[in-house]
Amino acid sequence: MTTMIDPLRRAATVASAAQAVKCGEFTLTYAETWDRCQRLAGALTAMGMRRGDRVAVMGANCHRYLELYQAAPGAGFAIVPLNHRHTDTELRYALDDSGARVLFCDRDAGPFGSGVEHVIRLDSEYEELLTHAPRSPFPDDVREDDIAGLFYTGGTTGKPKGVMLTHGNLIANALHFQAEAPFTPRTRWLVAAPLYHAAGSVAVLPTVWHAGLQVILPAFEAAAALDLVEQHRVTDALFVPTMLAAINEEQARRPRDVSSLRAIHHGGSPIATQTLRHAHANFPGASLIHSYGATETSPFATMLVGEEGILDTPRARSCGQPIIGVDIRVLDTEGNDAARGAVGEVAIRGANVMAGYWKLPGETAQVLNEGWFRTGDVGYMDEDSYLFLVDRAKDMIVTGGENVYSTEVEEALYSHPAVLEAAVFGVPDERWGEAVHATVVLREPIEPAALIAHCHALIAAYKAPKQIDISEGPLPKSGAGKILKRELRAPFWEGRSVRISGA
Amino acid sequence: MTTMIDPLRRAATVASAAQAVKCGEFTLTYAETWDRCQRLAGALTAMGMRRGDRVAVMGANCHRYLELYQAAPGAGFAIVPLNHRHTDTELRYALDDSGARVLFCDRDAGPFGSGVEHVIRLDSEYEELLTHAPRSPFPDDVREDDIAGLFYTGGTTGKPKGVMLTHGNLIANALHFQAEAPFTPRTRWLVAAPLYHAAGSVAVLPTVWHAGLQVILPAFEAAAALDLVEQHRVTDALFVPTMLAAINEEQARRPRDVSSLRAIHHGGSPIATQTLRHAHANFPGASLIHSYGATETSPFATMLVGEEGILDTPRARSCGQPIIGVDIRVLDTEGNDAARGAVGEVAIRGANVMAGYWKLPGETAQVLNEGWFRTGDVGYMDEDSYLFLVDRAKDMIVTGGENVYSTEVEEALYSHPAVLEAAVFGVPDERWGEAVHATVVLREPIEPAALIAHCHALIAAYKAPKQIDISEGPLPKSGAGKILKRELRAPFWEGRSVRISGA
Repeated sequence: MTTMIDPLRRAATVASAAQAVKCGEFTLTYAETWDRCQRLAGALTAMGMRRGDRVAVMGANCHRYLELYQAAPGAGFAIVPLNHRHTDTELRYALDDSGARVLFCDRDAGPFGSGVEHVIRLDSEYEELLTHAPRSPFPDDVREDDIAGLFYTGGTTGKPKGVMLTHGNLIANALHFQAEAPFTPRTRWLVAAPLYHAAGSVAVLPTVWHAGLQVILPAFEAAAALDLVEQHRVTDALFVPTMLAAINEEQARRPRDVSSLRAIHHGGSPIATQTLRHAHANFPGASLIHSYGATETSPFATMLVGEEGILDTPRARSCGQPIIGVDIRVLDTEGNDAARGAVGEVAIRGANVMAGYWKLPGETAQVLNEGWFRTGDVGYMDEDSYLFLVDRAKDMIVTGGENVYSTEVEEALYSHPAVLEAAVFGVPDERWGEAVHATVVLREPIEPAALIAHCHALIAAYKAPKQIDISEGPLPKSGAGKILKRELRAPFWEGRSVRISGA
Repeated sequence: MTTMIDPLRRAATVASAAQAVKCGEFTLTYAETWDRCQRLAGALTAMGMRRGDRVAVMGANCHRYLELYQAAPGAGFAIVPLNHRHTDTELRYALDDSGARVLFCDRDAGPFGSGVEHVIRLDSEYEELLTHAPRSPFPDDVREDDIAGLFYTGGTTGKPKGVMLTHGNLIANALHFQAEAPFTPRTRWLVAAPLYHAAGSVAVLPTVWHAGLQVILPAFEAAAALDLVEQHRVTDALFVPTMLAAINEEQARRPRDVSSLRAIHHGGSPIATQTLRHAHANFPGASLIHSYGATETSPFATMLVGEEGILDTPRARSCGQPIIGVDIRVLDTEGNDAARGAVGEVAIRGANVMAGYWKLPGETAQVLNEGWFRTGDVGYMDEDSYLFLVDRAKDMIVTGGENVYSTEVEEALYSHPAVLEAAVFGVPDERWGEAVHATVVLREPIEPAALIAHCHALIAAYKAPKQIDISEGPLPKSGAGKILKRELRAPFWEGRSVRISGA
């Protein structure tokens, strides 16, 4: 019975005059945000939207995005956040697949938006829409198992799938998050990661529920992020690793007053211990919190709180323990519990686990079983259930019968000072089935043979790359900063059937 | 899908070696507690208990009580905590009404226990039962809407009713609580209030979920409580007001090192501001947190965090704002929303609201409507939804057409230094319908007429008591320390039909 609009309903009730959001020149109170969200619900209803219809949104982070994220589901519709870095073809696919009837967009939608009935420009038409819309009360019969949104999974593997998250899923994740990390009316959260990504929107409901303040960074830029932290006395932020590295560099270059920061969350992809050491040096008053999860789990599954205190221990390389409300298992190839410490596929259960993939019952059945979501991530748990990820199942390489975890090889490459970026994957090999292949971006010139020799000194011979390509430009990345190995690997596998790798 | 045993399952997984409970000479780790709970489930199953059967428990706070509270519901049974201060007749009523098949008891059950199939002494037979029991895995098909327990409401009004709380209700309350107050693995909670009461058991699930430590006080005694705080570096505790007053007195008399205390929760009944001032002086490192709720709401509905900072403001007299996950309305006599600031009946909605009263569909229908629970408490909310309670609906007096809130009159009486205890209620009156009546316990002699004159100086004439009785002994109280006005009022109303007071 708790829905995506209930946190805002509470905030408007308990702290109507409190500042809700700062976005550039805009400052809105909770009373104003509540009024705007009611008008937005009224506008959507006036457009003829029916219960369960989809509302797509594509644009940079802004207060209007936050309003859509809460009011559209609250009014009984499903939000469809689109990644604005995607190509027109990918965007059109998500719009067609979701059947969105309305699209809010901060640029000319052009060809990709032509299939929807209403295209509303966030930067020019949105305010007018609200001005003329009647306030609509939010329906009280929206159910916890109604779909709150379709979240298209980012492009590291295969065709995008619409992850169906219910109100109950997202509310559960918000409660689990609050059980692990304190939110209060004094929380000032920097919205730094893109809101279309789970890492960007994960703190919306908890912050609003406590009537805290959200400070919005429209597009990531390290200097602007630190300026906002200083100017608005930001207390909490979440960065993906590439962002945190940039923040570190900027703060070292030109220190701001960051004494208000008490927690820096990071997640989205693995992080180098060195980045954490720099973060601790640059932000000594902040606790470092690593989280792991998936879009399909709304997203949090594990958390490592207080990393700064254990940087010299093995557990600093883990992604922490199952959070409150979430169960985790590591499964062997038969789908049974792997022995403690043994590597297998990570499975997640909890009220935060998605309802399924939109219109893809087959794909849903492959990953959901009796409440357990199979993540496709490969890892192991230690005796206290600290989870150590070793690879994506799809990125694991089977060569001559041996499993090679691409991340282990990448770490060996990254330990060489000449290596700026590295991606390791399997390529077809007549003799070994797959051979270990690396594509790297260099800081300074070095011969591939010298890098291979460097790896041989660190890891077993069968794990070392057989071949290394030097890339002239940066490696292709997703919106969340993950290297798109799929794109690098594809040319090698063209015309071959895709290997289904077991965990 | 989350049940009462899942917090312990997590704790045993993430921190098996951590201390779970200290009770007298006993110290148990989470691994040990988990093992004991599995054996307890095995023992109950071996007794022939079937899904949904009731398990009653009556006794002082102890580690065994905690085990029953988690393992019996986890195994698919319903726990029935009994108030050991009740008479044999009352206990027998609850046992018969619930149909409990087994009773765990720390004294000879005698006549009240004769209706159950198995009586197991907590102090002598329990350990042997565990020793011989097989470990039973907890079933994974216990549902969130299965009844986890029947909690018989304390005796301030009428016949005891079995409040049916589901797993979902108690888990929701635990999540709401964690969203408002931080729990961590370093939480050391003093179990001070009786576990059969919601105030005593409210922190069990959150503390266990975080693998914190519970330090158990078998029966309340201020000196022993403070000794445990000092000895075990207790961080959090909840006291009912009478306990907190005694704790204050003891700490002032013989100060302990209480520097570990960071939060003192209080609830269960209204508290005097003076008690809070003393608490803040005695425990300067602790935040004072006032909570309000009902057994029917599992129990938390509102919370006032950081009271120590607002003791000189009007809101110090409120019981705070709706907590995360809970909606509150104040209803007028027609059942509509009362105007902001206007007095009416408090209604509560949330995933924490009970399934109903056991075998009492009529009584259930009277208080539950579309998810809203009518509390029978009368109060109002200010512009930021701070809730101010003015009375129990049943304790409100209607005299000559005017509403008189008994608590307001009691406050006037308490403000006289001669008054130690005061209870105000309505008695039949030919002319006014009801007349305001007070029963008081004195610290020093004073004439009733002088007390009535004291009231006339403070409150309107129609609110002042028409008559005051002086009681020689202390007023009758419930296990939670509430004065039982029902018992005081009953003789005046004998032979008359009971007034149903609207809000």
